[in-house]
Amino acid sequence: MKSTLLSRRDLDFLLYEWLGVEELTKRERFADHSRETFDGVLELCQELAERYFAPHNKTSDANEPTFDGSRVTVIPEVKEALDAFAAADLIGMSMDASVGGAQLPVCVAQAGFAWIAAANVSTSGYVMLTIANANLLNEFGSPELIDTYVAPMLAGRYTGTMALSETQAGSSLADITTRAEPQDDGTHRLSGSKMWISGAEHEMSDNIINLVLAKIPGGPAGTKGISLFVVPKFLPDGTRNGVAIAGLNHKMGQRGITNTVLNLDEAVGYLVGEPHRGLYYMFHMMNEARLGVGMGAVALGYTGYLKSLQYARERPQGRPLTAKDPTTPQVPIVEHADVKRMLLAQKSYVEGGMALALYCARLIDLQHTAESESERDETTLLLDILTPIAKSWPSQWCLEANNLAIQVHGGYGYTREYDVEQHYRDNRLNPIHEGTNGIQSLDLLGRKVTQRGGASLAELGKRIGGAVERARACSGVAADFADALEASWQRLVTVTTTMFAAGDPEAAMANSAIYLEAFGHVVIAWMWLEQVVVADGSSGDFYDGKRQAAAYFFRYELPRTAAQLDLLESLDRTTLDMRDTWF
Amino acid sequence: MKSTLLSRRDLDFLLYEWLGVEELTKRERFADHSRETFDGVLELCQELAERYFAPHNKTSDANEPTFDGSRVTVIPEVKEALDAFAAADLIGMSMDASVGGAQLPVCVAQAGFAWIAAANVSTSGYVMLTIANANLLNEFGSPELIDTYVAPMLAGRYTGTMALSETQAGSSLADITTRAEPQDDGTHRLSGSKMWISGAEHEMSDNIINLVLAKIPGGPAGTKGISLFVVPKFLPDGTRNGVAIAGLNHKMGQRGITNTVLNLDEAVGYLVGEPHRGLYYMFHMMNEARLGVGMGAVALGYTGYLKSLQYARERPQGRPLTAKDPTTPQVPIVEHADVKRMLLAQKSYVEGGMALALYCARLIDLQHTAESESERDETTLLLDILTPIAKSWPSQWCLEANNLAIQVHGGYGYTREYDVEQHYRDNRLNPIHEGTNGIQSLDLLGRKVTQRGGASLAELGKRIGGAVERARACSGVAADFADALEASWQRLVTVTTTMFAAGDPEAAMANSAIYLEAFGHVVIAWMWLEQVVVADGSSGDFYDGKRQAAAYFFRYELPRTAAQLDLLESLDRTTLDMRDTWF
Repeated sequence: MKSTLLSRRDLDFLLYEWLGVEELTKRERFADHSRETFDGVLELCQELAERYFAPHNKTSDANEPTFDGSRVTVIPEVKEALDAFAAADLIGMSMDASVGGAQLPVCVAQAGFAWIAAANVSTSGYVMLTIANANLLNEFGSPELIDTYVAPMLAGRYTGTMALSETQAGSSLADITTRAEPQDDGTHRLSGSKMWISGAEHEMSDNIINLVLAKIPGGPAGTKGISLFVVPKFLPDGTRNGVAIAGLNHKMGQRGITNTVLNLDEAVGYLVGEPHRGLYYMFHMMNEARLGVGMGAVALGYTGYLKSLQYARERPQGRPLTAKDPTTPQVPIVEHADVKRMLLAQKSYVEGGMALALYCARLIDLQHTAESESERDETTLLLDILTPIAKSWPSQWCLEANNLAIQVHGGYGYTREYDVEQHYRDNRLNPIHEGTNGIQSLDLLGRKVTQRGGASLAELGKRIGGAVERARACSGVAADFADALEASWQRLVTVTTTMFAAGDPEAAMANSAIYLEAFGHVVIAWMWLEQVVVADGSSGDFYDGKRQAAAYFFRYELPRTAAQLDLLESLDRTTLDMRDTWF
Repeated sequence: MKSTLLSRRDLDFLLYEWLGVEELTKRERFADHSRETFDGVLELCQELAERYFAPHNKTSDANEPTFDGSRVTVIPEVKEALDAFAAADLIGMSMDASVGGAQLPVCVAQAGFAWIAAANVSTSGYVMLTIANANLLNEFGSPELIDTYVAPMLAGRYTGTMALSETQAGSSLADITTRAEPQDDGTHRLSGSKMWISGAEHEMSDNIINLVLAKIPGGPAGTKGISLFVVPKFLPDGTRNGVAIAGLNHKMGQRGITNTVLNLDEAVGYLVGEPHRGLYYMFHMMNEARLGVGMGAVALGYTGYLKSLQYARERPQGRPLTAKDPTTPQVPIVEHADVKRMLLAQKSYVEGGMALALYCARLIDLQHTAESESERDETTLLLDILTPIAKSWPSQWCLEANNLAIQVHGGYGYTREYDVEQHYRDNRLNPIHEGTNGIQSLDLLGRKVTQRGGASLAELGKRIGGAVERARACSGVAADFADALEASWQRLVTVTTTMFAAGDPEAAMANSAIYLEAFGHVVIAWMWLEQVVVADGSSGDFYDGKRQAAAYFFRYELPRTAAQLDLLESLDRTTLDMRDTWF
């Protein structure tokens, strides 16, 4: 039976037929790997996802973690799944061999992890945070911190958290007030209160390693005065550190993972790297975390799509327009044009999103193993500009895919007896955390598009231009799509120039969210053009499906951007001119 | 303190300044009423909403009805609220005086009821179903049925349900299989199983009156052989009828109202009207129910908007673009352009949706009290074509308003400690029940647009043309908006003609859902034009807000339709040509 989590056929297409991931094994870092080891990881992840993660997805949604004032209780299936994942040596799958990792390409690891997220996004969160935590320590921590904390995290004995936000400082991290007082022994004592901390309290690991942003008194104001600390739940001597939760947040979705207020009361913290560089370190990790959020959104969209497809094939209801005789049998709803539209839309969103997620993951691999300065520079420029898209686009459109998955199910989709309503609730977090989509839009338009004289935009233009060229050489519909993409891209570039040429940054930035949406649709159109180029000349259902989904995206989705770009070009002031008292 | 349920100021503007509802009192049916009685009802509804309905909205979401195999338990606050509503004599507020009603205009009753729905959509559902049930009996039931059942419903002693769907027959009612065997005493015995029945089992009323669709053996096939029956839970002699629930459905939202499988086992049913006319009767009621669903969606969108506005005014976060000094105080997020965009979008959706809901409600009043054949005909034509829009547009866009309300709240909006996540879950039902939005699109394009040679479309065109004329006579921005609306409307009409001119109904209907969306946006643009015309020449925050929300709709929303209409005009076959095996 076909999996309803993800499509392995599609992953193989994207990784091997398109991204040429086998080529990566020619690079020293991945020299011990092969198609076989890549396939092995994908199969293993699928197996673990189906065996350990998917079966308790509903259970943990219906039975949230509880807090009795001192301990948090999580249903036992969560720990079983985490243990199975760790026992399979997957936590370090993309990390260096020197710290005990398997040194797999990030794109393979991300594809593997997507199975886990599709099966159970809440339980996967504990793993994802632990991986992000270990990655950050590997990159910026002292050898001592790495020795003490990374190995047990890879072994699954310790788990990790990221403690950035505070009640008064969510999007605005400059405003955190947690203080870190230096001590004579080189440690710090941290006091303050953190908010929205996932995985911060439970009994499933021997220790919880919190990575905490705090200010050392006397440092610069704002983000320049933020430092990063390791604050373990238990100190090396086994005593409890001054870090405790005040309660649990109760969420609409992602209910299986604890989310808490975390109070620090003279907690012992170990400085990571240098003082006042904490936000830089954190954002290094955050960029990969944002790609991970995007992939999580894709995974939820993808499983919802497959489940609604299965439902549409099995559910008889109604008759074709041309067959009104009520005594004829009903047909499966997959035969109705409007249901096909909802399925095609989902397919175009989730496969387009998956393509972007894996493309970005492979960019990380190329960046990490760059064989020249120019390769490193190009991949960095591309990653910079694609990260806000890869985070926000799936957060918006794969959530919309979940919305359509419910609609395909009709009333059944609204009940908790089916899966899709939970996916929709779970996915709704993604436009919010790790930088809201509004924050992503400021990052894209206010920073990435203009940085280094527009070098990122130019680099992206080169890649898109390359795809357009290749598409023009193809048979079939690819050439039409090439023209449409080229025209949209040129218009986007022109509008971008116009917006800044007016010399009114406030007006240019006022509609950054619309800019992000339009930009995202152009990028995904590019992802679809890449896919039809690869599919060109190949026949069969799979490739025909790729062509049809691309057609859907080019005919139904890309044209949305025209009105958005018109608005942006006009430097519309409707939102700027709106006054609070007029609401 | 201002209410965060609805805006009374806006209701007054729509009802009195725009729709001239006081004029209705010149008609005989409403002669006993006045601005004072209308205001009294609005105030009473607001008071009941705030005192009895809103306080248990979260409680009933967190404590769903439970079923122990024989009895359903609902938290006691629900009955208290229902009793208070009945005690205020509001159940029959728009019904005839002859059956004990207050004979208020439907538009005033709907505005009043919107307070209740905004406060607690689940609990309001019990009332709404009872009202719809009584309305249907009043219209088509025998005097005996009315005597027996309507009076106790108005008194709040009985509640009602609507039992249409079956497991295998949701959108396709032709396929119901519940049988009604005629008996010698003139009654019928009904056997079968109904699905998705809200309010079908509880202990809050002395009797539950189910209106059930069933087929009398030997009747015509399909929808032409469906009859309608009253099937009470308790028979007149006090014995239990053969109607029982098999369990409860567990929904994503609207958790406070029971939703169940209802089994009929030789249940006694009383025929309503004539045999085989059941679907006609039900659809008479259904059209008003669809307007009610639209109003429910508006109410949820409205309260979410007001709550996110309040939050945005109180939540300090970040600084203006031009003030980067991190030592300056944070500003309330309502000052950020992107937050203003999300609030303006909500305002344009919910106030636009409210305008349409009340416009349609007033059309019902004009239809019921038509002073000429032409008035009756015109209002009927308009209601016919507007009903699918008034149901589907708020279901889509006021849900999107709730989505934006969450986004304005950031992480807080994702928690159950705030209200907006529940509104979003509650509102997600509306694109599904009482005919999915897909079904609405078939109704609009396949029936309403073409009926009587396009008479409904022409009538709507006249109304829109009238608004355009009036707007051209206005000062300010109204004239610009008038040009935009006229152009969009003309384009919609041209595209409609093109779609059918090709003589390929399958292709014309393939994108009916896109047609519904584009049509809806044009209609709401008209609603906004009507409002700026009324506001023309008036100064002050309220009117400036109306103008700015209209500007938002005309600049950000209406232009979306251009790409949709292009697609429709091309008679695109992407969805038709898609094959099941390609997914």
